[in-house]
Amino acid sequence: MTTVSVVRIYIKEGDKYDGHNLMEEIFRILHDEYKVHGVTVFRGIAGFGSKGIVRADDILRLNVHLPLVLEFFDEPETVNAVMPQLQKLVPANHVLRWDAQCGCPS
Amino acid sequence: MTTVSVVRIYIKEGDKYDGHNLMEEIFRILHDEYKVHGVTVFRGIAGFGSKGIVRADDILRLNVHLPLVLEFFDEPETVNAVMPQLQKLVPANHVLRWDAQCGCPS
Amino acid sequence: MTTVSVVRIYIKEGDKYDGHNLMEEIFRILHDEYKVHGVTVFRGIAGFGSKGIVRADDILRLNVHLPLVLEFFDEPETVNAVMPQLQKLVPANHVLRWDAQCGCPS
Repeated sequence: MTTVSVVRIYIKEGDKYDGHNLMEEIFRILHDEYKVHGVTVFRGIAGFGSKGIVRADDILRLNVHLPLVLEFFDEPETVNAVMPQLQKLVPANHVLRWDAQCGCPS
Repeated sequence: MTTVSVVRIYIKEGDKYDGHNLMEEIFRILHDEYKVHGVTVFRGIAGFGSKGIVRADDILRLNVHLPLVLEFFDEPETVNAVMPQLQKLVPANHVLRWDAQCGCPS
Repeated sequence: MTTVSVVRIYIKEGDKYDGHNLMEEIFRILHDEYKVHGVTVFRGIAGFGSKGIVRADDILRLNVHLPLVLEFFDEPETVNAVMPQLQKLVPANHVLRWDAQCGCPS
């Protein structure tokens, strides 16, 4: 077992960075620049943050910006390198990391 | 980086507390009473617990109560204050917490 | 509070093991053989891994194999027993575990 850092990034559908879709922009950085092992994006069905509450059911969901969570894990050194880049795109309190054990080859 | 506590609460669609929708009730407590930084609700597509297995596909999902996970994080002191309240609403073994690092302003 | 191990297993829709649906196979092992406390399966809306990028919107999603995450938690001893079995089914770097606090009865 090796130790990896798990990262979860909390954004919303419709968030922009410099005119681009923020989710796609983070995705691009993680994939193209840092080549992290893998990323999964989850969409929440409800949430609240500094901008208020959103709730969705299947009928209404085109009308709201639901929460998105991007999750990935990689070696701590790689995550250390990614974090400053992420923090240019996302408010500091929207990114969490913690350590986990992985059966990853060391 | 500051240390925060991450909480995940495992319930199901259709769960009630005192006649009210449990998810909305937890949401209300976290938002109105404790003003935690943010909450995201995820719906699983399958699961099992003490009441048996549920599986959903898009056609059948009106017939089943799928798993819901409510996730939030905040300072450990705030989470300490929330936990006893949560444990009135949810079985003790349906709530997890662990520590993570956040770029949150301390 | 007791310490539990949280496990997240990262696979994709359509993954097979020995001709069977991998998600159902893992589900079966966790439920029937190890009787872990509960399992939740989440479907991501986008992701990338060693096989490239997938993205889904509601219209296209029949055409792609989206990411699936199976999550469960149980006592560390039970998780220790499950892990070798999981690692026969899933690449070693697709399974994470970390410790969390639970209000579970000890």
